[in-house]
Amino acid sequence: MNSQKDKKQLWQTLQQQAQRLNQPRFHLREMLKDEKRLARFSRKGGGLFFDFSRQRVDAEVLNQLIDLASASRVKEGFADMLAGRKVNTTENRAALHSCARSFETTPLMVDGMNVRAEMGRIRQEVAQFSEDVRTHKLVGATGKPFKDIVVIGIGGSYLGTEFVSTALQSYATGGLRLHFLSNVDIHNFAHITAQIDPARTLWIVISKSYTTAETMANAAQAVAFMRSKDLDPSAHMVAVTSKGSPGDAPGQGMLRVFHMFDFIGGRYSVTSAVGGLPLSLILGFDLFEQFLKGAQEMDLHAAQAPEADNLPLLAALLSVWNTTFLGYPAQAIIPYASPLRKLAAHVQQLNMESNGKSVSTSGTPLASPAGVIIFGEPGTNAQHSFFQLAHQGPAFPIDFIGVVRPQPFARHFGGVSRGVTNHQELFANMMAQASALALGRDHEQAGRRFDGNRPSSTFLLEELSPHDIGCLLAFYEAKTVFEAILWDINPFDQFGVELGKVLAGDIRRKMEAHNQGDTTLFSDDDPIVRFYLQALLDTE
Amino acid sequence: MNSQKDKKQLWQTLQQQAQRLNQPRFHLREMLKDEKRLARFSRKGGGLFFDFSRQRVDAEVLNQLIDLASASRVKEGFADMLAGRKVNTTENRAALHSCARSFETTPLMVDGMNVRAEMGRIRQEVAQFSEDVRTHKLVGATGKPFKDIVVIGIGGSYLGTEFVSTALQSYATGGLRLHFLSNVDIHNFAHITAQIDPARTLWIVISKSYTTAETMANAAQAVAFMRSKDLDPSAHMVAVTSKGSPGDAPGQGMLRVFHMFDFIGGRYSVTSAVGGLPLSLILGFDLFEQFLKGAQEMDLHAAQAPEADNLPLLAALLSVWNTTFLGYPAQAIIPYASPLRKLAAHVQQLNMESNGKSVSTSGTPLASPAGVIIFGEPGTNAQHSFFQLAHQGPAFPIDFIGVVRPQPFARHFGGVSRGVTNHQELFANMMAQASALALGRDHEQAGRRFDGNRPSSTFLLEELSPHDIGCLLAFYEAKTVFEAILWDINPFDQFGVELGKVLAGDIRRKMEAHNQGDTTLFSDDDPIVRFYLQALLDTE
Repeated sequence: MNSQKDKKQLWQTLQQQAQRLNQPRFHLREMLKDEKRLARFSRKGGGLFFDFSRQRVDAEVLNQLIDLASASRVKEGFADMLAGRKVNTTENRAALHSCARSFETTPLMVDGMNVRAEMGRIRQEVAQFSEDVRTHKLVGATGKPFKDIVVIGIGGSYLGTEFVSTALQSYATGGLRLHFLSNVDIHNFAHITAQIDPARTLWIVISKSYTTAETMANAAQAVAFMRSKDLDPSAHMVAVTSKGSPGDAPGQGMLRVFHMFDFIGGRYSVTSAVGGLPLSLILGFDLFEQFLKGAQEMDLHAAQAPEADNLPLLAALLSVWNTTFLGYPAQAIIPYASPLRKLAAHVQQLNMESNGKSVSTSGTPLASPAGVIIFGEPGTNAQHSFFQLAHQGPAFPIDFIGVVRPQPFARHFGGVSRGVTNHQELFANMMAQASALALGRDHEQAGRRFDGNRPSSTFLLEELSPHDIGCLLAFYEAKTVFEAILWDINPFDQFGVELGKVLAGDIRRKMEAHNQGDTTLFSDDDPIVRFYLQALLDTE
Repeated sequence: MNSQKDKKQLWQTLQQQAQRLNQPRFHLREMLKDEKRLARFSRKGGGLFFDFSRQRVDAEVLNQLIDLASASRVKEGFADMLAGRKVNTTENRAALHSCARSFETTPLMVDGMNVRAEMGRIRQEVAQFSEDVRTHKLVGATGKPFKDIVVIGIGGSYLGTEFVSTALQSYATGGLRLHFLSNVDIHNFAHITAQIDPARTLWIVISKSYTTAETMANAAQAVAFMRSKDLDPSAHMVAVTSKGSPGDAPGQGMLRVFHMFDFIGGRYSVTSAVGGLPLSLILGFDLFEQFLKGAQEMDLHAAQAPEADNLPLLAALLSVWNTTFLGYPAQAIIPYASPLRKLAAHVQQLNMESNGKSVSTSGTPLASPAGVIIFGEPGTNAQHSFFQLAHQGPAFPIDFIGVVRPQPFARHFGGVSRGVTNHQELFANMMAQASALALGRDHEQAGRRFDGNRPSSTFLLEELSPHDIGCLLAFYEAKTVFEAILWDINPFDQFGVELGKVLAGDIRRKMEAHNQGDTTLFSDDDPIVRFYLQALLDTE
């Protein structure tokens, strides 16, 4: 039996299994009566502990999911990616974000370039530059040391960096402050420029093509802003961009340029110069390197651990099980750790942009679109926000993330309330929520009844060190890629964002004509377009 | 025919209509060919413009939805709420958030109290107190004027205030900085105390019962923190709480107390003292009052406009149509305005906690749970995050929110990129996205094909003034209540959060025993509980 046929059969079997698991005797309340449930349905590896004892699977389903992974050649696909094969088939590109945190020295050649050596070279440049800024060897045009770092970039050019810099904020040294100018919204620009000291500001423009509309508009605003303050942009602005892009112009209006490559997509770029430059500036390169080593540890685990013990692979299988077979339309990420408050926004992009697809790797339309909505807030905040619906509304699976020890800066607060520390209170709540969702509760009043059987996973991190954050980042990256292989889609392209760009271009050209005195605009053929243009431009 | 029967029949008719609308000839691409589509499917009122021309309805469905509103006695239910009837039946309480922004003087009596007079009295107290702080008439224990305001509160005690204060940040005067200490997470506390000047900090503890576990733990930490800095808490801490709660102790460890009432739920409390106190401190009471007047304008519109022209009611009908009849599991809120970046988090709580229910107002279980997942990020950020899935993955409806004029502080940036201002670029993108989602595009390659027919609404605000933000806040409140009446659920209780609290209490007591030297803890009966307690407590 070939693997394609095998896979189709397993798919059908799992559809039947979903029916079986819907029976009352497979309610989580029943399955959790097994004393060994946790031991059987939890794993450790790559720096994380993963408890999926409250997912709606039994040993039979788990084994079939693992068979599905084999039949889908998931590990082979992952190995192809790591080896630099052109797994991004629609764009004929490799996907080598793992190389950005690899410290191996064996050459890895792609299109005649030794990618590992090139990544090492760029890390060196980032280390040197960030050191120079942090030690005030490199200063602004007026001789003042830098204090504010403004990252101009959107989507993958900032969301991952925002997650990591927020998570590791308490590790920052050197007093540099990081700002993100992502939205083209002029409010965003006005808000940031109200906070910074122009003579002490370093702008980092991040765009692979250096043509991203929002980023270019913001970079133009930044240059105009510097000029209005009599500051030379070429002493205050650096770029992270592709070789040969319009922004790859060191010395010509640009203090320094760091390269990024078409084999690392924006949403996978945190460990490249995209995240490396801002993170090394605020944390120092050494801590950034610890973060990389955490990511590398998870990469190695994802590549080497057998299917049945592979955390991101098991998580991907459960995600596909929940989405495709049990039919849950969304997943929440609820870290019980406020430093992880930007994790959900990062994974939202990483996963939804990668896997929100309607076409298979062979270019044929899928029976139904792949992907799932991801959202989340930190616990216990989320409990006081949308958990009413999580318990009594339409169900959705949840990733709980707990931390054994708070970060060093928070450890010395020793206050106790109701006999427990705040950290114990937090942890107790995480434990209670996973349990309440799974078990439910009967009650004579229907309004106080909880049907339970609501699935969740719980992840534990030892602490929120740079290393642990690296593990977590790479875990969600690997999980996303594994899901894509299971769904047989390409997680590295994003043609779904094209149409909006094309239509925005059409409207922009109309506005441009209007700005240049063209008065025919308001007779636009499309009455809806006409109405909105009028609403906006009539008031100017 | 009685209204109950009528309603049941309409429900069935609408189920059939959903089938009809799934036919290709009702694809939005086809329906939008009607030149009058926008005129027919848009309304203005209560300070907002609402375009639902890209929702999947035709005139027939719209009329039946409006009939459903009549049959569900939606306007009568809303009037009952405004009149102070005990519409929160499970808790035998009125729901009078509208009174918090009513400037009417006719008495409104509930349980012997004139609610309008009481709300007016509290507004006076807030106005006076905020004025005293802002003019430095009232200062900290060491005689220094206040600079940092820390709101200690969780869920509805801060999410609405966070939304409004973020939206109106550029209107702030007086240099007071607002912080939110919501999460019991000690990282949250450590992060805030690292930023504030203790001698110049005013703490506002917000809890209706003054027993909320997280808020009490944080208040205890705050008191310990002040004492460690030799500051008298009774000169630095105020409370917003119920009459007679443990925190209602002016003069006894509490500088001042502002009352809140059981007839205003947390998620509806922004316009009461809960939001009023922090917002008046940072904005001044006059701007807060403008905000209230915007909310009042929308309340009056919601109460008075006929069904067919009533914005929050039409929005609620479309929400029920999308959720219950077309089966969309989620809704996104995408404001093209970065000051509205906390709107989705607020509405997420407001709507999901109100309407994520499994029991009808008569106490019988619903056929399937009510409510819908709400999430969102500002555009254009969202385009570069999860819009790949919005265009080519599983579909979900979207609220786009556009703003005609930027806030004053952002208007003077005149830069132009690609021939348009940043604000024009932003607006062009909003127009393009709504259009691309609805129309789709054919293409020879399946990966570049867009099926379209993805519904959205577009709202326009003139600007983001305090008044306009008030309108927007009250719009989503009224929409939420209207939805609940249509679904026949109580949007004012939240019994779904009870079970988690009970179980957390059990675990907390075990931890407390452990803290007091009890060594039996790790022999807990439940192996999962045992494992997690060990993971946490063994390392301490």
